[in-house]
Amino acid sequence: MPVVVQKYGGSSVADPDKIRNVARRIASTYDAGNQVVVVISAMGDTTDDLIALAHQINDQPDSREMDFLLSTGEIVSSTLMAMALHKMGYKAISLNGRQAGIWTDNSYSKAKILKVESDRIVGELNKGNIVIVAGFQGITGESDVTTLGRGGSDTTAVALAISLRASVCQRFTDVDGIYTADPRFCSEAHKLKEIGYDEMLELTCCGSKAMHYRAVELAGAYNMPILVASSFNEAAGTLIHGGESMEVRNKVRGIAHDLDVAKITLTGIPHQPGIAASIFEPLTEAGISVDTIVQNAFQAVTTDLTFTVSKEDLKKAMDVIQSMAKSIRAKEVVSDSQLGKVSIVGTGMLNTPGYASKMFSALSKENINIQLITTSEIRITCIIDESRVKDAVRALHKAFELEKD
Amino acid sequence: MPVVVQKYGGSSVADPDKIRNVARRIASTYDAGNQVVVVISAMGDTTDDLIALAHQINDQPDSREMDFLLSTGEIVSSTLMAMALHKMGYKAISLNGRQAGIWTDNSYSKAKILKVESDRIVGELNKGNIVIVAGFQGITGESDVTTLGRGGSDTTAVALAISLRASVCQRFTDVDGIYTADPRFCSEAHKLKEIGYDEMLELTCCGSKAMHYRAVELAGAYNMPILVASSFNEAAGTLIHGGESMEVRNKVRGIAHDLDVAKITLTGIPHQPGIAASIFEPLTEAGISVDTIVQNAFQAVTTDLTFTVSKEDLKKAMDVIQSMAKSIRAKEVVSDSQLGKVSIVGTGMLNTPGYASKMFSALSKENINIQLITTSEIRITCIIDESRVKDAVRALHKAFELEKD
Repeated sequence: MPVVVQKYGGSSVADPDKIRNVARRIASTYDAGNQVVVVISAMGDTTDDLIALAHQINDQPDSREMDFLLSTGEIVSSTLMAMALHKMGYKAISLNGRQAGIWTDNSYSKAKILKVESDRIVGELNKGNIVIVAGFQGITGESDVTTLGRGGSDTTAVALAISLRASVCQRFTDVDGIYTADPRFCSEAHKLKEIGYDEMLELTCCGSKAMHYRAVELAGAYNMPILVASSFNEAAGTLIHGGESMEVRNKVRGIAHDLDVAKITLTGIPHQPGIAASIFEPLTEAGISVDTIVQNAFQAVTTDLTFTVSKEDLKKAMDVIQSMAKSIRAKEVVSDSQLGKVSIVGTGMLNTPGYASKMFSALSKENINIQLITTSEIRITCIIDESRVKDAVRALHKAFELEKD
Repeated sequence: MPVVVQKYGGSSVADPDKIRNVARRIASTYDAGNQVVVVISAMGDTTDDLIALAHQINDQPDSREMDFLLSTGEIVSSTLMAMALHKMGYKAISLNGRQAGIWTDNSYSKAKILKVESDRIVGELNKGNIVIVAGFQGITGESDVTTLGRGGSDTTAVALAISLRASVCQRFTDVDGIYTADPRFCSEAHKLKEIGYDEMLELTCCGSKAMHYRAVELAGAYNMPILVASSFNEAAGTLIHGGESMEVRNKVRGIAHDLDVAKITLTGIPHQPGIAASIFEPLTEAGISVDTIVQNAFQAVTTDLTFTVSKEDLKKAMDVIQSMAKSIRAKEVVSDSQLGKVSIVGTGMLNTPGYASKMFSALSKENINIQLITTSEIRITCIIDESRVKDAVRALHKAFELEKD
């Protein structure tokens, strides 16, 4: 019997009615003749509520305790889902990360899956059970509970799908697929029928919240197809896969954006080895995640270095940088917290001339000033004023003719 | 270093302020030179809230799923307690039932502890950690989560105290000790300095909510002293222990009462072997817990049989009994849901004449009608009208001169 792994996000199981709705969808997949494994996130805002509760007790909670605390959210939603299926007359059992065999390292709050031992799941499937797995969590060799970080339930689902040799990993949430741009920003945006793993990766890295990048990366490595669809309607979703047509497609596939960008620039720093390390090591130690880094060495002796962080981390990052500015002989430290990011994403762009210039020209026509530019194999990103991100998305969607299906 | 096991009830950790308050008490026990293991209940009404949530999904939730769901409440409070201790500069770690080595059978919702493997706890204590254990839960040989039933955290604490050879098991809650009667019913009631295990058992079985009877039973079997005290003040509590003076004390120690009593009487049933079994087996199968049973065979051919259940179970019990009344040829089935129970408790009462008659006479003077009488080695219980329970407690407290310390 084919195995299908489904994953439902927190908004899809936010209350008893929504849990019942999801239970009906699970049951119909089972009735269609599949063995069904379901990965569930915590209900609605549960995780945020637990974090807030912990912060009332300790503003810097220990990460082992925090992971242990947060892991309860997914157990609550999983047990309730099993009860909902029982009520409909189906056999079902919920499993936590340990019972589901999700073994991880002990990097709390962002643990990596080391292996999946799916014997228990297989045993329950063979007993005729629908298996509900608490997402987002795993267990260390010392029996301590870990979490995989935000969006970790996506990773749980993909890892289980691979381990169980599932035919597909279906990911249901309140978003019904991958769009050419954010429909709230661009009314011409339309849903893609399919997208490659690499393209999806660049979209998720650029602020598209549709799918966690670790899950996409993992799925890509094992060529596990992921269907992204809505849990609230029956509309066809987007299939993320690695089909043959991917390599030859030479086209911008979507416009990604991110409104959560702040930037710090150090000017006049000595252009010598070790400077970059002396700047970024203390940031890493302070737990600050740096996104884009641009260094522009326009003269031999000194250089300017700019990097971006999330707006939330800006104050902490500035504290770190200002405390070292003197020792590294920086001339000036300036920051800007009102920035955004806009990207065009598509396989093979960099091998084809004209994409970059077309992007810059489209932004220029809208009188949008580009502050930073970075590129990858399949992405070109511009950092611009936050206030112009919406205009930029629209302009680029039009320039690359994404309104045409 | 001596090991002290402390247990804090749900009302003692109901919010962040109360958690901090408890953390200070734990810290001062640690500072006094003890290794400290703390068993925590779920915060405030968490368990009831989770039960209500489950019932919104399924009015008869599967007991395995229910146990798994409820076990999250104690993990939340335990992790928060560890965080509160960290904030105060103490080393602490929280453990769930599995990590604490609480192995149980698989009778979900009322699991029995089979063994305690305390290696992990001992290891953490030796690292200088205060160990916070999620109460009320254990794990089966199949890695499934169980709960020990209401009041199970008391049992967790006593089992750990025994396993760790603790000097004492301290139980803190919003009650500051064991009283000669409920102070809300009887203003002369006063706190006992000490009480024997057996006496405590009879008090808990008769509705005194101060301590779970399974925990007292377990403590008694291993002679582990339990201190019952308040988490909100420093008043001396009551020590439950098995001292030498117990045997020779010949005195009523306290008046227990219970307002949750309903009764069912079957009249005119054949007085023959097997009848009692045919009545109580179906009740057991329906999960109904029967308390007092009285059979009064006043003639040779037929007999009357009365038993009591909790008010909550009365309807279900009546359904069971009425469906069988014809087959066992009962003449009549009558029920009364407006009953209560009042008991006098004290070691050695039955060996000493006069206690029973003194009790009946005290009730008679108050014009309180006795519906049923049952006795044990150290207890005499009368079932009376619920409306007269308060008067009965007062009258008995006075009759046995319990106002004198």
